[in-house]
Amino acid sequence: MRRWNGWGDDTIEVALGESALDFLRGQIGAGTAPRDAAFDTLCASLPPGRLPAHPLVDATPPARLMHAAGQSLQDWLRLRYGRIGTAPDAVAFPESGADVRTLLRWAADHDAAVVPYGGGTSVAGHLDAVGARPTLCIDMARMRSLVSIDADAQLAVFEAGVAGPDLEAQLRAHGCTLGHFPQSFDYSTLGGWVVTRSSGQQSLRYGRIEQLFAGGRVETPAGPLAIPTFPASAAGPDLRELVLGSEGRLGILTEATVRISRLPDYEAFHAVFFPDWTAAEQAVRTIVQARLGLSMLRLSNAVETATMLTLAGHGRQVALLEAWLKLRGAGSDKCMLLVGASGEKTQARAALKAALSLARRDGGVHVGRGLGERWKRNRFRNVYLRNSAWAHGYAIDTVETALDWPRVTPAMHAIERAAHDALARDGERVHAYTHLSHLYPQGASVYSTFIWRLAGDYDADLARWRLLKTAVSETIVASGGTISHQHGVGRDHAPWLAHEKGALGMAALRTLFREFDPDGRMNPGKLVTP
Amino acid sequence: MRRWNGWGDDTIEVALGESALDFLRGQIGAGTAPRDAAFDTLCASLPPGRLPAHPLVDATPPARLMHAAGQSLQDWLRLRYGRIGTAPDAVAFPESGADVRTLLRWAADHDAAVVPYGGGTSVAGHLDAVGARPTLCIDMARMRSLVSIDADAQLAVFEAGVAGPDLEAQLRAHGCTLGHFPQSFDYSTLGGWVVTRSSGQQSLRYGRIEQLFAGGRVETPAGPLAIPTFPASAAGPDLRELVLGSEGRLGILTEATVRISRLPDYEAFHAVFFPDWTAAEQAVRTIVQARLGLSMLRLSNAVETATMLTLAGHGRQVALLEAWLKLRGAGSDKCMLLVGASGEKTQARAALKAALSLARRDGGVHVGRGLGERWKRNRFRNVYLRNSAWAHGYAIDTVETALDWPRVTPAMHAIERAAHDALARDGERVHAYTHLSHLYPQGASVYSTFIWRLAGDYDADLARWRLLKTAVSETIVASGGTISHQHGVGRDHAPWLAHEKGALGMAALRTLFREFDPDGRMNPGKLVTP
Repeated sequence: MRRWNGWGDDTIEVALGESALDFLRGQIGAGTAPRDAAFDTLCASLPPGRLPAHPLVDATPPARLMHAAGQSLQDWLRLRYGRIGTAPDAVAFPESGADVRTLLRWAADHDAAVVPYGGGTSVAGHLDAVGARPTLCIDMARMRSLVSIDADAQLAVFEAGVAGPDLEAQLRAHGCTLGHFPQSFDYSTLGGWVVTRSSGQQSLRYGRIEQLFAGGRVETPAGPLAIPTFPASAAGPDLRELVLGSEGRLGILTEATVRISRLPDYEAFHAVFFPDWTAAEQAVRTIVQARLGLSMLRLSNAVETATMLTLAGHGRQVALLEAWLKLRGAGSDKCMLLVGASGEKTQARAALKAALSLARRDGGVHVGRGLGERWKRNRFRNVYLRNSAWAHGYAIDTVETALDWPRVTPAMHAIERAAHDALARDGERVHAYTHLSHLYPQGASVYSTFIWRLAGDYDADLARWRLLKTAVSETIVASGGTISHQHGVGRDHAPWLAHEKGALGMAALRTLFREFDPDGRMNPGKLVTP
Repeated sequence: MRRWNGWGDDTIEVALGESALDFLRGQIGAGTAPRDAAFDTLCASLPPGRLPAHPLVDATPPARLMHAAGQSLQDWLRLRYGRIGTAPDAVAFPESGADVRTLLRWAADHDAAVVPYGGGTSVAGHLDAVGARPTLCIDMARMRSLVSIDADAQLAVFEAGVAGPDLEAQLRAHGCTLGHFPQSFDYSTLGGWVVTRSSGQQSLRYGRIEQLFAGGRVETPAGPLAIPTFPASAAGPDLRELVLGSEGRLGILTEATVRISRLPDYEAFHAVFFPDWTAAEQAVRTIVQARLGLSMLRLSNAVETATMLTLAGHGRQVALLEAWLKLRGAGSDKCMLLVGASGEKTQARAALKAALSLARRDGGVHVGRGLGERWKRNRFRNVYLRNSAWAHGYAIDTVETALDWPRVTPAMHAIERAAHDALARDGERVHAYTHLSHLYPQGASVYSTFIWRLAGDYDADLARWRLLKTAVSETIVASGGTISHQHGVGRDHAPWLAHEKGALGMAALRTLFREFDPDGRMNPGKLVTP
């Protein structure tokens, strides 16, 4: 069963071991677990739904509560402390594009706002009901079919509500893969990926969702927008690009054609340790600019490297590894790089060999596949640490941006500094660490994680989160970064969007959305606020 | 000196030899050269300009005539027959973004339309003055500086009026390249590439201009739009994508940041002949889907292969080659593939080797580098054949599209069939041949060339061109292709744009342009017509 107030499946626990807890206590002090609100109490507290009955619609309190929030820390605070605020008045489960059209008309008839819902994994506040109108949440979970596939042409058409594992399983049956693996893969949906401009962990090979989304169908209040597929086009601005990142503001993507690949016949992830950040950053820049055809590069800074090795919990093995690395020049400032290659075996191995050889020039020490394969095994499980950290009285949140190379390291330092200082008012420390999650020839994404102690009270914890979120977001835009590289804008990042779009760009986006949604009915309050 | 009524520099002649002329006479009959109008006569025929004097503006008839048309066949007919129709009322040569802003204000003060002008190489009718208002042409030729470069971060900022050779020379001084080589490279500009979504011959390695354009500055009637550079972003729809393909409708791109690469230390182009189209198409699909890191794949169909070998004019060498190929199974239906690799030597050679090995499986016969290197030497010169064909009474025109794999071959056949039949009314034959100019895992661009006889009269030749252009354009959209893969929409392709954008998409584009250009002043009549 999906957890209603935390991450993922309630049968999966990823525990924080004693050594990890010791580490956290040392860094930021001992945490105290707050008491969670009960699901039934929250259900009972919901105000009555304001929408009439409809055969496609479920207006029961459990359905409404399960769709009231995503996975942003602000969403968690609302759920955990039972301060849900608003919930949709009803939840619909369409099974076809025709159902979606019916629902959009029904919403218009009742002047309801519409919140499209994919896997519910947004960490930027895309899903809450906002405004005075009643809200209809449209959950796309039942639209998950593979509509058609042409493995020779490497194109597949899916209903947009399909989640990662279901999508990959249906492709695997044809010897194919999409290759899109965000950390939310287990739950997030194709439609969600498209409308939030998602990026998967192996985007270095497969591309971001922008490159994978070839066309599709969007049901908008103004009618359907059908985007045909071409391998490329010079025929004016690309309509796909209006849908990508639209975050539900112009309609609901019901069907998407995606560019698929053959399943790789070889895949490997290797780990390399560098003596320090300067050497590591230099090496990854060299490697990514060499265009070797790798599938992943992921570089942790020294604090993240130390934190990961500690949280892994294999104390004795790690101590041996660290002693060995120290002898080879990678001591306490060491930074871990994961290098992945996927594809045809000869090519993939040649790419790995070339990458490892370039890494060596900057002092990289190759430690083989063990850590890389462990990362791969756990790549969708580490996010469960949010649950166990909460249970010990700690909050975990992340921010991410992307910047041109000259700005990457200064931004990383500035973001961590801003986080460290953000809760000084409360006398609280923030443990902050960072990795470059996606590498590009011209720069990188900077992905920072923050851990701090919960105050045990909704208002106090919301205030702490706001202080921290504001401080790091201001730092991101002041450092020349985008307010999001892969999570989207939603409610939480909206205040900083104008910094990069400019007044004229914001006006253009508003006008554009109004063209498809004249009544401002679609996901109001997200992305572009009035 | 630039030719005023033909392609390129007037010191460069690429002649059609006797064997080539024999070939054309055999295919479509002997041509008769029409008489060209004289430059001075046309200058004298221009109506007086309707704009007042301004220090940045040249309203002399030669300047106005030189900016009255591009390189579309319709443009040629206007120039060659002296039926120019309209010309801009004045031409401005700004030297800075401030100059461009001044000019846009001045145009507004005099209610003038504005036509942005890069290298004048449009083959889709982007440059003519349209409508009742006076027209100011803004020629960006003096804005050609490298503003800044960061070779480590692989980013360079240029003024957008810089033309191909000037841009590459400035980058080469820093050991870098943009790698964008459209056939118009000698004259076309960075700004032109961006606003028409241009694709270079080596886009397989370097990407289309969409991938190379990282950000920039657009001066619009509503004010400046500054687009910052990020390696990637999930912060809402991407404003770059509104500028890409905007064809001057929302403003003038004055400055662009581009993603550059190190100069390749190795580059080679090889030729492979396949027995027939079926084998050749199968092979290129296999090769492009193998993601080998090649820089070019270019596949000619049998008629193009035969035409190219004939036009090359080395009769004896070609006969020997053909005899040798025939022994190896590539006879009269043979199709030539050019395979290019660029970059670090080991990688590039490995990619070539892998490609040639895959080609062999489908019956490909490798003939070495000679033909490939000759193609490279002539790649910006073959377009001069348009001049010499005209001088012998022949018109040459091209169309191009892109389609998913299942549609590629049927579309190619349908386009050629439509062309063959298009001038039947006049009892004229059309020689038609095709290559796949750009290969993608999901499909290819289809680039067809047509040669037919001139009637020797403006109205008759315009009618012939219209018949042909309409027939092949209808066929392209009916075949599921985009109306342009690399040339843009302009005036000539505008009637077919709604086929792929849909009514709602067209409305969205109109609304979007109006936001930046409320008075509809910018390049009216192009791309999106009212």
